[in-house]
Amino acid sequence: MNLKEFGGEKAIVNFLKKEFNSKNKKIAKGIGDDAAVIKRGNTFQVITTDMLCEDDHFSLNYFTPFQIGYKSMEASISDVYAMGATPTYTLVSVSFKKNTSVEFFKEFFRGIKKSALRHNVQVIGGDTTHGKKMSVSITVIGETKKPVYRRGAKENDLVFVTGKLGGSTAGLECFRKKIEGNEKVKQKHTNPNAQKSLAKKVAEIATALEDVSDGLATEIKNICAESKCGAIINAEQVPISMETKKAAKALKKNALDFALFGGEDFELVFTVHLKNRKKAKKIATQVGTIIKEKKVYLKTNSKTAELKKTGFDHFK
Amino acid sequence: MNLKEFGGEKAIVNFLKKEFNSKNKKIAKGIGDDAAVIKRGNTFQVITTDMLCEDDHFSLNYFTPFQIGYKSMEASISDVYAMGATPTYTLVSVSFKKNTSVEFFKEFFRGIKKSALRHNVQVIGGDTTHGKKMSVSITVIGETKKPVYRRGAKENDLVFVTGKLGGSTAGLECFRKKIEGNEKVKQKHTNPNAQKSLAKKVAEIATALEDVSDGLATEIKNICAESKCGAIINAEQVPISMETKKAAKALKKNALDFALFGGEDFELVFTVHLKNRKKAKKIATQVGTIIKEKKVYLKTNSKTAELKKTGFDHFK
Repeated sequence: MNLKEFGGEKAIVNFLKKEFNSKNKKIAKGIGDDAAVIKRGNTFQVITTDMLCEDDHFSLNYFTPFQIGYKSMEASISDVYAMGATPTYTLVSVSFKKNTSVEFFKEFFRGIKKSALRHNVQVIGGDTTHGKKMSVSITVIGETKKPVYRRGAKENDLVFVTGKLGGSTAGLECFRKKIEGNEKVKQKHTNPNAQKSLAKKVAEIATALEDVSDGLATEIKNICAESKCGAIINAEQVPISMETKKAAKALKKNALDFALFGGEDFELVFTVHLKNRKKAKKIATQVGTIIKEKKVYLKTNSKTAELKKTGFDHFK
Repeated sequence: MNLKEFGGEKAIVNFLKKEFNSKNKKIAKGIGDDAAVIKRGNTFQVITTDMLCEDDHFSLNYFTPFQIGYKSMEASISDVYAMGATPTYTLVSVSFKKNTSVEFFKEFFRGIKKSALRHNVQVIGGDTTHGKKMSVSITVIGETKKPVYRRGAKENDLVFVTGKLGGSTAGLECFRKKIEGNEKVKQKHTNPNAQKSLAKKVAEIATALEDVSDGLATEIKNICAESKCGAIINAEQVPISMETKKAAKALKKNALDFALFGGEDFELVFTVHLKNRKKAKKIATQVGTIIKEKKVYLKTNSKTAELKKTGFDHFK
């Protein structure tokens, strides 16, 4: 049996959660959220690690070394914001291929540094090594007084999302299909930005929180699974930029699919209590409501149907 | 210019040390030691990450998935002991290739778990993803009241090393040259053990400390560079097992070269003040002496000459 037949990423995470379950009370959250959370006195330390592999997460055909460094950092830092925490330190592991030029190496680390400076994160270590393919693994450490988990959504909470969705996937498809122009969505794919400026405001009001790395559908399903609830997503409300719609048209694809089942937008999806609706509206777009029934529905103009499809899965 | 011409790992580390230099006083040690060290109240947190790539750090031709998991963990945990710290938590990032079997996946994580249990380390997170080649990146966090750096060696200190050296490289060469038998050195390569039982005793007396991951010559040079001193290594005293000597003979190679310029023995090399010689002798073998002159010499029966060659460098 291969990992696809095993059930993909969901089955993998469930296996690992069970295998490495711990009764250590210092571990506020182990495997199964955007980051691990360790209790330290009256504060919490948040730790996450993400791996990006050549020809899977990025292609040297349309990524500059600067962009690989920058995007790798933003992706891991996004996971720290997704816990309601502030990133502080990072360790960068990277394998370069044979004959990698010094310029490539320096450009990669210029991308790392640009992102580090943007988020006021200090690079304190890592490992620079050699591999047959380029791989990047970024560990980011953060701090928070109050972590926000996936598990806190309650019935009647409202579901919000920051920014616009689907741009990164639209950009990726334009690269793959060699569609000219569409620079803005292409840039969404190569130079995404973690939600530094909004993260704190979101964390203050969110009952559950996650970043959009695997498409809105998957993220909302994750929140619902951990919170033991369901949701109705309102298709009309899912925020999609004009550029993404334009690219989708050129690609003969549905822009909503990019938003729901694409990935790597690194926006924040969160739930709030009704009382915080106004505050949430100032920083994000409402896209749905939490319901008691443990299913996720997609509501369009014409009908409301269960949303069975999920977003990107590396093993599917 | 490629990274070899740039100067290999040493030039890379020097570039990164300069690039990511920080005045943050909480960072007791950034880039340039076995692990980063962060001050937290009256204790220190130690963080390290190591990346292992298929066909570079391990081959699926002679590594079982269990061994890949186990060795990756022991390698990173060894870096925590090399700071005089106790490992506590780990995050495991791994990219599996297409069609990886569930059995392979589970065996890999059985290796991770075996090592985690051995060192009382908790797996709290990570990332399981897909890649064209298998890569593993292990982050380990540890704690200590008193970190031991590479920089503490003083003139007249004695240089000690735990265990025996060169076995891992002997094993690797036996695999590569398809030499039958020699199971013990092969096992030193596939199932190395970080020095759990000795680490605390070493940390108590060490003035400078490092693990032997790139050969004794490189490690002693690192200590000398950071401590601004030199050393004389006594070739006769370098501890080498009978099995390693036997394998070297079969390979028509010099066993001392494996010890000096090989790698991945994961023993601990450390310096002590003269007054702690007796204590050190109970747990390790004396292999040299620290001198004022900033050069490293190798003393054999016939002569004493400067040791210019260094150990394994991924970019050389």
